[in-house]
Amino acid sequence: MYKETNIRSIAKGITWRIVATGTTMSIVYIFFGNIELAVATGILETIAKVGLYWAHEKVWQKIRWGRKKIEPFNLMFTGLPLSGKTTIADLVYDKLQKLDIPIERIDSKDIRELIPNIGYSKEERLKHIKRIAHLIQTLQKNSISTITSFVFPYKESRKIVREMVKNNIVVYVKASIEECKKRDYKGVYEKALKGEIENFTGISDVYEEPQHAEIIIDTEKIKPEEAADIIYKYIKKNYIK
Amino acid sequence: MYKETNIRSIAKGITWRIVATGTTMSIVYIFFGNIELAVATGILETIAKVGLYWAHEKVWQKIRWGRKKIEPFNLMFTGLPLSGKTTIADLVYDKLQKLDIPIERIDSKDIRELIPNIGYSKEERLKHIKRIAHLIQTLQKNSISTITSFVFPYKESRKIVREMVKNNIVVYVKASIEECKKRDYKGVYEKALKGEIENFTGISDVYEEPQHAEIIIDTEKIKPEEAADIIYKYIKKNYIK
Repeated sequence: MYKETNIRSIAKGITWRIVATGTTMSIVYIFFGNIELAVATGILETIAKVGLYWAHEKVWQKIRWGRKKIEPFNLMFTGLPLSGKTTIADLVYDKLQKLDIPIERIDSKDIRELIPNIGYSKEERLKHIKRIAHLIQTLQKNSISTITSFVFPYKESRKIVREMVKNNIVVYVKASIEECKKRDYKGVYEKALKGEIENFTGISDVYEEPQHAEIIIDTEKIKPEEAADIIYKYIKKNYIK
Repeated sequence: MYKETNIRSIAKGITWRIVATGTTMSIVYIFFGNIELAVATGILETIAKVGLYWAHEKVWQKIRWGRKKIEPFNLMFTGLPLSGKTTIADLVYDKLQKLDIPIERIDSKDIRELIPNIGYSKEERLKHIKRIAHLIQTLQKNSISTITSFVFPYKESRKIVREMVKNNIVVYVKASIEECKKRDYKGVYEKALKGEIENFTGISDVYEEPQHAEIIIDTEKIKPEEAADIIYKYIKKNYIK
C-alpha cells in the first residue's frame, strides 16, 4: 500500500495549473481581445490557485467517502505433483501484477522450505491447509488477492478453503499419472513407486479430482502460456472492474 | 486497500470548481470591473474545466511516481499467561486503527481456536511461531502492520520473529506469577499446578524473560489504558510520518 507524498501533490498542482491557466487565458482573450490582460489574469490566477489546489488535495486525502474496497479473490491451483501448477501459477502472477492490484503468491514449496517438518499424513495436510486458508483470509481482509498452488488432494481440504475465503476460484491443473511420471526429472515418482516416500499423492495417497472447478487446464493439450492466458482473461472479466 | 471510484473523482472536480471559479471571477472582476463578463467567464470556465479536471485526475491515477510505500511494523506482545497481553494489545489496536494505517490484529487465542491441535511442546511452539512469523512477513510485504499477542516464551522463538520481520517492537507485558495467579478467573494456573496441563508456561514450562524489549509494561504498577497510551505514543513517534 502506498501513501501520497507532498511532492506528488505539488507536482499534480503544477500540471493542473498548466492545463487550467491555459484555458482561462484563452477564455479571457476571446472575451476581451486583450492579450496583456489575459496574461496578467493568468499570472494572478496561478499565484492564487497553486496553493489552493494543494490545500484542496490535502483535504480530500482525509475524506474516505467514494473510495471502494478492492474485492479480493483466491486462485486455487490444485493437481497432482508435477502436473504444472507452479509453472502456470507463476505465469499468471506475472501477468496480474501488471494490473497494479494487490496480489500475493503462495506456493507449497516456499512454505515447506520454511517449515520443513509439516508432514504429509492426511491429518497434517488438513491442519496445514487450514493455516493456509487462515493466511489467505487475513490477506483478503486487507484487500489482497492470492494465487495459491498446493496439491490440495482432498475434497475436504478444498472445501475448508472455499468456506473460509471469498471469491475462491479452483483451477484444476490436469495431467495423467503417466504424463507426470514422464516430467519427473527429480525422480520423486520413481521413489514413491519404490515405497521410499510415504503418502505420495497419486501413488501411495489418493487425489480426489475436483468436481466443481471453475477452470480446468488440460496440460496434455495446452501449453503453460496458453493456460496462463485463459486464467488471466477469466480474472480480468470477473474480478477487475 | 481502496480504489478511487468515478463518483469520487467527479465530486472532487465539483468542489474544486467552486473554489477555482470563485477565484477566477474575482480576478476578472478586479481587472475589468464588469460583473456580467466576470460571470460569463466563470460559466465558460466551469464548462471547460470540469471535464478537464476529471481527465487530469484519471491520468494521475495511472502514474505511480510520488507514492511512498508505507513502512510496516510488528508490535510483539510477550508475557506470561494472564499477564494482560491481549487486553493491552486490543486497546492499542483500537487506537492505531483511527490513524487510518493498514493494520492487522493477530492473537494466540484466535489461531488456536481455528486450529485446536497445534500443541504446546517446545518443538510444536517453535513451528507455530515460525508460521506466525511467515504470516507477519507476508502481511508486511503488502505494507500491513501487525499487533501480535502470543506467550512467546522462548528467547529462540522471539529471535525467529525478529529475524523474519521488519521493525519488530517487543512489548514485554510484565506480571509476577503470583499476580497472574490472582487474575486467574479461568483456573488455568490452578490446573497447571495440579499437573493437569502439560507445558504450562510459568509452571511446568519456562518463560525466558526478554532482555532487549523495546517497551516494558509493568502491569502491577500501571493500568491497561496507560500502557496502551505509552505504546501508541511510541508507534506514533517512530513509525507514523
